[in-house]
Amino acid sequence: MSTETRDTVFIGKKPLMAYVTSTLIQLANLPTVNIKARGMSIGRAVDVAQIIARKTENAGYAIGDIKIDSESLESQDGRVRNVSTIEIQIKRN
Amino acid sequence: MSTETRDTVFIGKKPLMAYVTSTLIQLANLPTVNIKARGMSIGRAVDVAQIIARKTENAGYAIGDIKIDSESLESQDGRVRNVSTIEIQIKRN
Repeated sequence: MSTETRDTVFIGKKPLMAYVTSTLIQLANLPTVNIKARGMSIGRAVDVAQIIARKTENAGYAIGDIKIDSESLESQDGRVRNVSTIEIQIKRN
Repeated sequence: MSTETRDTVFIGKKPLMAYVTSTLIQLANLPTVNIKARGMSIGRAVDVAQIIARKTENAGYAIGDIKIDSESLESQDGRVRNVSTIEIQIKRN
C-alpha cells in the first residue's frame, strides 16, 4: 500500500472497515477527504461515511457536502450506459 | 394507488421508472419532493434523482439538499443493526 496522501477514497469491493481505516488515515494529514463511489457501491459509500461520523462523534469528524452525478460508461457490448455516482465530503468539526 | 399528494417518495423494489413517474406527478403539485431510501436501495434513489435531473434539464427540476443518516433496525434474530439512509430533495429550478 502506498503511503502517499490523497484527498479521495474510492469505494470498491473490499470489506467496509478497510475504507473506514483508509479514510481515517488520510484525515490525520488532511482537513477534508472525499469518499467516492459509483453504481452498486453507492450504498457502501454512505455506510463508510456513517460509520466514521458515528464513531468519531465527539472526536470528531462530520459529514460535509454531498454531491450526486452520473457518468457515461461504455459497456462490453459497446453500448453507452449512464451510471450514478456519489461524492461525500468528510471534514474536521 | 392513492391520488393524495405527498412530499416524499420511498424507493423500493419496483422498476426505476415507476419512482421517476411518482416523483414527477408530485412535483406537478408541490415545489419540492424528497426521495428517500435505505440500505440496498440507496443507489437506486440516486439513479431516480439523476434521471429526473437529466431529463428535465431545461424544463426543469434540479437536485437540492442531500442528507445521509442511519437508522437502528431490529432484525429477525432480535439483534439491532444500523442501516444507512439517504434523502435527496428535488426542487423546481
